[in-house]
Amino acid sequence: MPRKSWTRPMGRLLTGAIAAAVLAGCGGSGGGTAGASVQELMQARNLSEADVVAALKTYTPTGRTDPFVMFASGGHSGQVIVIGIPSMRILKYIGVFTPEPWQGYGFDDQTKALMASSSPRGKDLTWGDSHHPALSETNGDYDGQFLFINDKANARIAVVSLKDFVTTQIVHSPILGTDHGGSFVTPNTDYIIEGGQYPVPLDGSYQPITDFDDKYRGAVMFWKFDRDNGAIDPSQSFAMELPPYMQDLSDAGKLVSDGWAFINSFDTERSHGGDMEGQPPLESGASQNDMDYLHVIDWKKAAEVAAQAGKTRNVQGVRVIPLATAVQEGLLYFVPEPKSPHGVDVTPDGRYLAVSGKLDTHETVYDWSKIKAAIDVKNFEGNDPYGVPIIGFQTALHGQVELGLGPLHTQWDDQGNGYTSLFIESKIAKWSLKDMKVLEKIPVHYNIGHLATPEGDSEHPKGHYVVALDKWSIDRFNNVGPLMPQNMQLIDTSTPQMQLLYDLPIGLGEPHYAQIISADKLNAAQMYSPVGENQVTHQPDPHAITSEDQARVERHGRVVDVYMTAVRSHFKPDRVDVTKGDTVHFHITNLEQTPDATHGFGLGEYDVNLSLEAGKTANVTVVTDKAGVFPYYCTEFCSALHLEMMGYMLVKG
Amino acid sequence: MPRKSWTRPMGRLLTGAIAAAVLAGCGGSGGGTAGASVQELMQARNLSEADVVAALKTYTPTGRTDPFVMFASGGHSGQVIVIGIPSMRILKYIGVFTPEPWQGYGFDDQTKALMASSSPRGKDLTWGDSHHPALSETNGDYDGQFLFINDKANARIAVVSLKDFVTTQIVHSPILGTDHGGSFVTPNTDYIIEGGQYPVPLDGSYQPITDFDDKYRGAVMFWKFDRDNGAIDPSQSFAMELPPYMQDLSDAGKLVSDGWAFINSFDTERSHGGDMEGQPPLESGASQNDMDYLHVIDWKKAAEVAAQAGKTRNVQGVRVIPLATAVQEGLLYFVPEPKSPHGVDVTPDGRYLAVSGKLDTHETVYDWSKIKAAIDVKNFEGNDPYGVPIIGFQTALHGQVELGLGPLHTQWDDQGNGYTSLFIESKIAKWSLKDMKVLEKIPVHYNIGHLATPEGDSEHPKGHYVVALDKWSIDRFNNVGPLMPQNMQLIDTSTPQMQLLYDLPIGLGEPHYAQIISADKLNAAQMYSPVGENQVTHQPDPHAITSEDQARVERHGRVVDVYMTAVRSHFKPDRVDVTKGDTVHFHITNLEQTPDATHGFGLGEYDVNLSLEAGKTANVTVVTDKAGVFPYYCTEFCSALHLEMMGYMLVKG
Repeated sequence: MPRKSWTRPMGRLLTGAIAAAVLAGCGGSGGGTAGASVQELMQARNLSEADVVAALKTYTPTGRTDPFVMFASGGHSGQVIVIGIPSMRILKYIGVFTPEPWQGYGFDDQTKALMASSSPRGKDLTWGDSHHPALSETNGDYDGQFLFINDKANARIAVVSLKDFVTTQIVHSPILGTDHGGSFVTPNTDYIIEGGQYPVPLDGSYQPITDFDDKYRGAVMFWKFDRDNGAIDPSQSFAMELPPYMQDLSDAGKLVSDGWAFINSFDTERSHGGDMEGQPPLESGASQNDMDYLHVIDWKKAAEVAAQAGKTRNVQGVRVIPLATAVQEGLLYFVPEPKSPHGVDVTPDGRYLAVSGKLDTHETVYDWSKIKAAIDVKNFEGNDPYGVPIIGFQTALHGQVELGLGPLHTQWDDQGNGYTSLFIESKIAKWSLKDMKVLEKIPVHYNIGHLATPEGDSEHPKGHYVVALDKWSIDRFNNVGPLMPQNMQLIDTSTPQMQLLYDLPIGLGEPHYAQIISADKLNAAQMYSPVGENQVTHQPDPHAITSEDQARVERHGRVVDVYMTAVRSHFKPDRVDVTKGDTVHFHITNLEQTPDATHGFGLGEYDVNLSLEAGKTANVTVVTDKAGVFPYYCTEFCSALHLEMMGYMLVKG
Repeated sequence: MPRKSWTRPMGRLLTGAIAAAVLAGCGGSGGGTAGASVQELMQARNLSEADVVAALKTYTPTGRTDPFVMFASGGHSGQVIVIGIPSMRILKYIGVFTPEPWQGYGFDDQTKALMASSSPRGKDLTWGDSHHPALSETNGDYDGQFLFINDKANARIAVVSLKDFVTTQIVHSPILGTDHGGSFVTPNTDYIIEGGQYPVPLDGSYQPITDFDDKYRGAVMFWKFDRDNGAIDPSQSFAMELPPYMQDLSDAGKLVSDGWAFINSFDTERSHGGDMEGQPPLESGASQNDMDYLHVIDWKKAAEVAAQAGKTRNVQGVRVIPLATAVQEGLLYFVPEPKSPHGVDVTPDGRYLAVSGKLDTHETVYDWSKIKAAIDVKNFEGNDPYGVPIIGFQTALHGQVELGLGPLHTQWDDQGNGYTSLFIESKIAKWSLKDMKVLEKIPVHYNIGHLATPEGDSEHPKGHYVVALDKWSIDRFNNVGPLMPQNMQLIDTSTPQMQLLYDLPIGLGEPHYAQIISADKLNAAQMYSPVGENQVTHQPDPHAITSEDQARVERHGRVVDVYMTAVRSHFKPDRVDVTKGDTVHFHITNLEQTPDATHGFGLGEYDVNLSLEAGKTANVTVVTDKAGVFPYYCTEFCSALHLEMMGYMLVKG
């Protein structure tokens, strides 16, 4: 059992030495820290030695930046959460699938259109279930340029530009219904992988659930990423039909396994509930078999196949490689994996695949070279009901490590160790890939889902930390009502024994998964320059103006274009006269070229709030359907005369 | 100049003593903290002595709670932010004016109706500009039961129940247009004060801006709070018409000044912009006069007057005391105040009113007894253009303290000191009320708006800290793009010199104002019990079911009621068969009675996400306008078999 040094009795303290650690006061009365000793502070706040170490390892003085930055999903908040490591301070919530007025996301014309463009079947969507962020990679390492994130509920993928930490594109996969195995990127971000979760008829039709085995299918999308344009290219994207198993998480191969993708599954039993019809609920129906199927997919060859005439079927506008074709072309293979597993995580050198058992207590590690060899010589042990060849479990196996109850997810450090979350046992297990044995386990509080290590799913993990994304926080924080925050715990893995450093409550959202990047790989802009940029296109906005002289109101019949500037501390014009029924287009440019010189544009009653960062142009349209006097004002406290930064929209009846 | 001890050169360290502060290791290899010394940690992370002190004063080990809890406004995020002090960890974002899917706010039938009920003129509003939270008070002290918050953009007030930290009511004032002087409560929360900001015609009509002086008005709402029902009672509420000055912040008198309310103003010049019409922009037009008017209002008598027949006018459904009546009845008085001031803050004993100059470098302190005496004997120095009597500046004055550039807001400690934010100078000034002089100033980073001290605007401030709500953060944090976080800085005021302890970035929202309460005054529930409670009504939900046996689907023509349960790890029913065009009402009850046993209900494509805390019932209605197969699933990671907690809604064409 690992020594739990953080619970060591206080009696072992070298109290004399601690007491002697008097931090220099400046003498006399009223002096600075006034001789507060470390021991006095420890006693006053009941801090142990381990607490002192943890405090000094995480505390970040004013003006200091963090060496690592985490991007975590916000879960059903529909956002991405940016967190500094090791300070564990939340730096930003990025609006992605949910409108967010502080940043104006979903409130101006362009972001409204962006969000609407991704809505399946033309219905407005105002939330998403963001699960797995993926940083863009070059040669298998994070390059700090883009972030991708999925929406489980609606099978969408969003692109976030890390130039300004803004969502620029959302695509929707009409065939999947829901997703879970996304986003995961191939080593040069050629493709973004999005695997579906709950089987549905891919053509979107109604089919009785009794036809589940025949008519319901899974699928995986391969979205082509055009880095030059910073956008997904749906025309170059394709999908592969899969059996109606619940595909779960994905990962892309790298180095020796580059060109291949891997997806777990559960419910190969094809149970589909019916707990009021005398069927077992899915939770037991999907847990009968000892093995489910790891999906092994040759995406590189699949891309070539998808480009060939006659090899795909157009399903709801998506180029789909039918399951039979995938089998025929040798694109899809199965390997048995125990038991309703959760994560499949490729090692940094691409040679092994680690599968976390969920309902099995092992980490099951497959050897890619063995899988590849079996594929090459067609060494199979039969097919699944859909004809997919199955590679033997022992054929593919490298080994198993007994970790504990409820393994879910593994990430790597720079020492050849894996860290796996144990949900039921509420621990993280550190284990050696080389020796295939557990080195240490540390409790977490409580019931961890995924975890993150710095660059831990790339070719070059940085080590040093692991962050536990815990699901239950029960007694960790002040009571804020029945809906409790999640707990994100920072753990030091650089010490001989792992040390819990910090509990960060997440008061908005549920981080399912996160990636941590070295801060020096990020290079965001501090403002938009030159003046007049649109945040969605990252191009000069066609309606930008670059000086107050250009401010004007143009009328063309019932359409009014207001070209407005914002600069400390006034809008120009600060008076807009229109007639009831007019369509008013506001085109507002923040002329500032000082970082953090942000303005806002709030127009109550018309549900408008724009965030105008320095140099940015934003547009919003209102139809003035009611006469009256409507103040507009700067919503972002910008200056001493911030409250005076306002104007009136006067609507004559 | 205050000594900046936190920048003391490292050379003054008692390095021997520090080196001797070896925290006990456990000996041998692989031992716990492995003899990490405080000095080693200081060197490794470049921490000064002051940093060590700050770290140990704020670091909060796993499982510990904070002694204070802050409620801050989220600004134009439309939310309330809950933060533990001194750990400076965000515990919760409460949805108020903006839909928020993680907590299901604005996504179920009841919260949708709640939000829609407050929309002016029947238009959907999906954001608000939350500025000033006010905790409910009993005898002038926070009682931890309710929180109120305003929406500046749409003149609304929300009620948040601190039983479960959920918004239960939003009221709208149709006469104000915008607000700023809200929320502020009277000492027993009889009334919630909401002062307007930008003058408009109170009847909501269009009036040319050239009629500003005659047709535009300010106003202040007095919302009657019914504590037994935990709700504002609009039928017992009333308003007072005010001149078209830009009323700013409010405060209620207490003890000797109980029964009176105070509101600052700026722009008594009645400038209203016109920067494209040759007029000066408001920022200069509103800054011409040396003095504006502190409004002094006898709300207790106003309530009596408002109850009398013929004394009010019904304006858009609001009982308004006309300005002339307010004057005639002796309800309204003015006191000159320099110069476009911002905050009016009543001292804990109710005897003085401190006004922060904004464009004047003083804190101007008025003596309530002098104001009251002048009123009693009608000692006035003329009237404003609207007939409001003016009390002489010198008559009312207690004294002035020269603080610095840009005083905005004052709060109190338990030692008789005031802390005033200096926006332009980017400092906080600590000054003695008794001696009327500055004691100390501390820099903040940067450009502070408001500040908060524990219970600092109540009758019994707790002292110990001041928190600076800074507006600019430029170089404080990792670069996350042009839209930068706000900076909330915790400062220790219990030491002989103030000490900066912690920078907390606010990555979502702009906290304008905050209140800090002793944590032991809060008593939130950890779950809803007994099973079946509705979070908006806090009553048993009429559609609740309390066991799986009661789960059922009822059809009445084209209307389908689904009574569903959620418990680890399945929904019952997990299959809902309907016909295209049906109206489906989901009534879902979480049967769990374990704290933190939260489930979710996500139905993609229909834009549904419910948050189902233990014991809660929520309802949502969808019209199934498209045939197909739609998975629904638990969005909140609840159990090992969380992914298996799903069902299908099957819509037959």
